[in-house]
Amino acid sequence: MPELRKDPVIGRWVIISTERAKRPHDFKQQKPEAEEGECPFCPGREDRTPPEVFAIRPQGSQPNSSDWDVRVVPSISPYLRLDNELWRKGIGLYDLIGGVGSHEVIIETPRHIANMADLSQEQINKVFTAYIERIKVLEQDGRLKYVLIFKNYGWKAGGGKIRHSRSRIMATPVVLKRVKEELAGARRYFEYHQRCIFCDIIKQEMADQKRVILEIDGIVAITPFAPRFPFEVWIMPKKHNPDFYKITTEEQNSLAKVLKEILSRLKKLLSDPPYNYVIHSAPFRRERRGYWTTINEDYHWHIEIIPRLTQVAGFEWGTGFYICPTSPEEAAKFLREG
Amino acid sequence: MPELRKDPVIGRWVIISTERAKRPHDFKQQKPEAEEGECPFCPGREDRTPPEVFAIRPQGSQPNSSDWDVRVVPSISPYLRLDNELWRKGIGLYDLIGGVGSHEVIIETPRHIANMADLSQEQINKVFTAYIERIKVLEQDGRLKYVLIFKNYGWKAGGGKIRHSRSRIMATPVVLKRVKEELAGARRYFEYHQRCIFCDIIKQEMADQKRVILEIDGIVAITPFAPRFPFEVWIMPKKHNPDFYKITTEEQNSLAKVLKEILSRLKKLLSDPPYNYVIHSAPFRRERRGYWTTINEDYHWHIEIIPRLTQVAGFEWGTGFYICPTSPEEAAKFLREG
Repeated sequence: MPELRKDPVIGRWVIISTERAKRPHDFKQQKPEAEEGECPFCPGREDRTPPEVFAIRPQGSQPNSSDWDVRVVPSISPYLRLDNELWRKGIGLYDLIGGVGSHEVIIETPRHIANMADLSQEQINKVFTAYIERIKVLEQDGRLKYVLIFKNYGWKAGGGKIRHSRSRIMATPVVLKRVKEELAGARRYFEYHQRCIFCDIIKQEMADQKRVILEIDGIVAITPFAPRFPFEVWIMPKKHNPDFYKITTEEQNSLAKVLKEILSRLKKLLSDPPYNYVIHSAPFRRERRGYWTTINEDYHWHIEIIPRLTQVAGFEWGTGFYICPTSPEEAAKFLREG
Repeated sequence: MPELRKDPVIGRWVIISTERAKRPHDFKQQKPEAEEGECPFCPGREDRTPPEVFAIRPQGSQPNSSDWDVRVVPSISPYLRLDNELWRKGIGLYDLIGGVGSHEVIIETPRHIANMADLSQEQINKVFTAYIERIKVLEQDGRLKYVLIFKNYGWKAGGGKIRHSRSRIMATPVVLKRVKEELAGARRYFEYHQRCIFCDIIKQEMADQKRVILEIDGIVAITPFAPRFPFEVWIMPKKHNPDFYKITTEEQNSLAKVLKEILSRLKKLLSDPPYNYVIHSAPFRRERRGYWTTINEDYHWHIEIIPRLTQVAGFEWGTGFYICPTSPEEAAKFLREG
């Protein structure tokens, strides 16, 4: 019998389907995607991108020269720009603001590798360093409220036709809706229980073990209780911390290990599916912006990974209502044994 | 310069992109989709579906015989069932409830026509009658809180491989997240202004004319100020009314005319794109459920239509953050002149 499950943080109901339940092997093989054009992200083609804003390079190496490990460049056609003005305007009952912000590409490796799963743990660790350094710089800009770090891998996941592993940073002058909802849900829970809801979720999952995929040195990967998509995975630090960029060196190492392991299992077990991941972290300066009475006590950074296995019906966008054809318990079991 | 626009009802920010702006002709031709298998929805094959729960038939015609105009049948593999039990359960901090509800298919025409745009206005009117009659019946079931009516046209929009025009009804024991957000946003506006926000939107749009596509006898079609998708269209009644199923016969006629016109223009001008539509209407019995202090004053039914023209990056699901590459002013102009 199907059941409806509620996401405890934001309150979204999801149908876990049993009548049309899908086993891991029901998802079709992915066809390899054709690549188009010469890769502008490979070493020696640094002039094809705007000048870098950050890079990890050997000592003495010149900016925009070809000997780099990780490189961060502004997008060549950015959705938001730091040199735009931050105006605010009302038109009748509508509100709009200027498109100020940042839109950057993190080129994760000098090698022409498509899937982050195939980078070494050390290389993934360097990618995180690039994330953290960029967040620290962007946080200084008082006009910006949030930085969104995400990855689109594969054409179906919005990753484009160039198969060179990269992620994206977008800094925005507003806090994103989903993050606001999580902040509000987590605050509600904290006000009632005086505990972080994410800490409680981790505690319950660790005791229960039904949806835990793996745990390495304080970083845990689970399938969420009320997933929107089959094989959705959340990676969370066991230690309470609202801000991704404040993780310790040890946590960063474990996170690289866990992310590589999860992405590798998805690749191997689900035939290299397209996927997205998004880092959820607290907004900048929330103490001063009135988001929080209980600063730092109730939010908890995490990464959400969504493999793109199903044809998505558009009504999810109109309703916020999802039907997931694979139970998270089954997905976790499959990924655990992988 | 790009700008960020806020949806006035639920507060979602959307980037209206200018750097990567797309003109109507930038969207690729749609390839016609291959059909698979024999259509179970055509007359003479009534035994391929579960027995009908409603039909529009000539007088004297027997249920489940082949002379029908519109036919409503339970889904052959339903996500929710009326004969399930409504239990509620907590597991630690998680909540779940039994999958009670209804999942029905409205077969919109006896002819094997794929796109609702190609039905006559009279036939579309009959489809609305089927919607309304089913809502009235389902509303009687005290376990149900909401009825969702939607359409997935085309494979990319989740419409399946059988190209016979149909829509779906899903009645649920919970109110959907997006509807809750609209209710909350509309209530906030009403409490402040003592006016319905949707009425105000219509008033402003009619005065402004920038995003109005057409208006016929009290039903207006606009592109929303902060669209998530290019060529997103909202159809709204000018007269305030929270409940779709309470429309007058005249409004129902005009709605059929407007919907046919909009779907035909999308088909003609955007090369028969896949699309979804969702009817947003107030939940059942909200006065008794405490959703509303100001019963019936602040919600306003409408239809949202989303053509599936772009490759959607999955990060929208992780963030509630959308980037729309075509301004609604340009989309309205294009659809108006069509």
